[in-house]
Amino acid sequence: METSSPIPRDALVAQTGTLLAALREARPLVQMITNFVSMDIAANVLLAAGAAPAMVFAPEESPEFVRRASALVVNTGTLSVAGAQAMEVATTAARAHGVPWVLDPVGAGGTKFRNEIICKLLRHRPTVIRGNASEIMAVARLAGLTREAGGPRGVDSTHETSEVEGLAQKLARHGSCIVAATGAVDVVTDGQVLVRLANGSPLMTKVTALGCALTGYVGAFIGLGGAPFEATVSALAAYAVAGDLAAERASGPASFRTAFIDALYGLEERDISDRLRLR
Amino acid sequence: METSSPIPRDALVAQTGTLLAALREARPLVQMITNFVSMDIAANVLLAAGAAPAMVFAPEESPEFVRRASALVVNTGTLSVAGAQAMEVATTAARAHGVPWVLDPVGAGGTKFRNEIICKLLRHRPTVIRGNASEIMAVARLAGLTREAGGPRGVDSTHETSEVEGLAQKLARHGSCIVAATGAVDVVTDGQVLVRLANGSPLMTKVTALGCALTGYVGAFIGLGGAPFEATVSALAAYAVAGDLAAERASGPASFRTAFIDALYGLEERDISDRLRLR
Amino acid sequence: METSSPIPRDALVAQTGTLLAALREARPLVQMITNFVSMDIAANVLLAAGAAPAMVFAPEESPEFVRRASALVVNTGTLSVAGAQAMEVATTAARAHGVPWVLDPVGAGGTKFRNEIICKLLRHRPTVIRGNASEIMAVARLAGLTREAGGPRGVDSTHETSEVEGLAQKLARHGSCIVAATGAVDVVTDGQVLVRLANGSPLMTKVTALGCALTGYVGAFIGLGGAPFEATVSALAAYAVAGDLAAERASGPASFRTAFIDALYGLEERDISDRLRLR
Repeated sequence: METSSPIPRDALVAQTGTLLAALREARPLVQMITNFVSMDIAANVLLAAGAAPAMVFAPEESPEFVRRASALVVNTGTLSVAGAQAMEVATTAARAHGVPWVLDPVGAGGTKFRNEIICKLLRHRPTVIRGNASEIMAVARLAGLTREAGGPRGVDSTHETSEVEGLAQKLARHGSCIVAATGAVDVVTDGQVLVRLANGSPLMTKVTALGCALTGYVGAFIGLGGAPFEATVSALAAYAVAGDLAAERASGPASFRTAFIDALYGLEERDISDRLRLR
Repeated sequence: METSSPIPRDALVAQTGTLLAALREARPLVQMITNFVSMDIAANVLLAAGAAPAMVFAPEESPEFVRRASALVVNTGTLSVAGAQAMEVATTAARAHGVPWVLDPVGAGGTKFRNEIICKLLRHRPTVIRGNASEIMAVARLAGLTREAGGPRGVDSTHETSEVEGLAQKLARHGSCIVAATGAVDVVTDGQVLVRLANGSPLMTKVTALGCALTGYVGAFIGLGGAPFEATVSALAAYAVAGDLAAERASGPASFRTAFIDALYGLEERDISDRLRLR
Repeated sequence: METSSPIPRDALVAQTGTLLAALREARPLVQMITNFVSMDIAANVLLAAGAAPAMVFAPEESPEFVRRASALVVNTGTLSVAGAQAMEVATTAARAHGVPWVLDPVGAGGTKFRNEIICKLLRHRPTVIRGNASEIMAVARLAGLTREAGGPRGVDSTHETSEVEGLAQKLARHGSCIVAATGAVDVVTDGQVLVRLANGSPLMTKVTALGCALTGYVGAFIGLGGAPFEATVSALAAYAVAGDLAAERASGPASFRTAFIDALYGLEERDISDRLRLR
């Protein structure tokens, strides 16, 4: 699988700095239908970043609400029949009103129930799909792009992102969307260009729902209205650099979490410039 | 709109010190039907303060449970049809048993669904209504007291509390309740007296659900059995002074959250005396 | 009520060290159906310990999921009809597939609704029951082993664990299970042997859902496949020693929570050896 050249480092640093500032200025309203484990941290990550999160999911109000949102984020953790219906209604409304939306297919490949719901969501054409390597592989399988087995074990990945680069590109082309597979190295592709980002800390896997919160953070960036590929790459770059900063102050997962949210709050273009590692 | 003189500062300091001690002694049981984003922090705020929070909402057990509670707190965030039914049953039982209850009308004015549910809850006569300025304005509109538009953007306020002082007083008189509009300056009124409190930190808006947790904290204070107006004023004063203390130790929203809960745990009358700012 | 001699301290230290290492090596998948207040902290506790938590409860996928889990944990906080159904389906499947499961009977004795659901769960024969003293007393009453009144006040205990040692043993024999009543002194029994552990900090009662998270932690230990009694004793010992470590660094409940999760992450056999207090 051939890949075009990634964005030059300087351009990515400058673009990320611009988007960080724009986010604090515009305070995009991000509607989130996310799992119960992630609600606290996802809301706190978005607030620290400067966005305005709103956890609104009732089918009775969701279509009315999503019209005012800058982006919608849908996450399939702690899934239920009622939750799936909420996602169906909200993503339908998002598409009708031209609101971009991000899918976090938590646990894709894990059970038939989850797979069916994710299949339905794919038909509503997410703007971005963000998952770990096992989830991206499972979504590609659900889209008929591979027969490779390999769902996650529980909700954690059993693959490296390097194993799913080709599938991520196929999935991006198939869905005309951005695909981000995150892990020790984050991979982002629009089906043509593929960027690899190598910041972050192993402690990020020891804090629950940091991936879910990242999907919300991506939602805030695409809610700024620019090109979704650039927005997604910058969101992932900024998030992982904040992980680097936090790791330097942490003595375990909980102090890491505190330092991470504080780091997102204070993150500057200079931090990106000093630390960004492209592969 | 004329307002009577506020409570003298010395009296408010002494009263708040007395209530802080009473809360740790009596450990009031506060039943909370609150949104999913706020559950962790609301429970932790109440425990740190010395109260005993209990998140009990099933209509099948709520009426039996609320009889033993010192106060009930109802919050309309992450609203659903099932949640609204739980609130209906619990507030009905609270009134039947003379248990005071506090309404946090999260997102009032945001959607028709939310407005209808809040209208129904108002009929159950909350003891206290605590919201941001936009929510108080929206509740006043739902109560027919103004035609002024202006619901919140998402769940955040788009108004200053100074803009809703008159409406808060009207609403308090209309509902025979206490109304608290919180923000950079907190406003509390029983319809006659109006108190303005000016402590707190801008970081409080960067931690999710600190307002929801405040409503729980107000519930703990009114659960002590004294006059609801004094209890509400003291709760707001103590909470905002803890915000001042935490801001001095914080390097961002997450370290602020930690310092804030620790500050509530150790809060003394002397802190109130040293720092309380009335307007 | 006579009790056999407890496990010798040296043996318990060595066994706990072995299990701590095994947990980090095996990363047991622990399916949790737990209350909404506890989700964040329970997941973070399990991740810090080295386990892989998964909050999966939908009846449509739970039976398929639980087959791959090393243990199932069921907690009756924030109970609902839908939640009770999820528990029924999951515990049925766990038994069918030989997956051990742990019951945390939050609020047992509090309402008829909760009591009925806990009675049904008892018929599915939990491997371990972990609760506070009031909850263990209430469960013993539901099992017909005592007429002593005394449910919890809200969700907090109104009894010392020393008051329920005999009932815990009766309950363990009656249910052929392990019973752990936790508090200032933790009591664990298989119906014959009874161990008392005296580590931990009063701050643990000021952080919401640390008991629920402990039940998850017990699930991770029994998910390693060894004898449930030894696993439960070691889990409680390790958890309480982490509480000792955290208390030395804490200035209140929130900094305690952070230090506690960090302590669990770094916990070594040497810490157990240095600090374990048996009664």
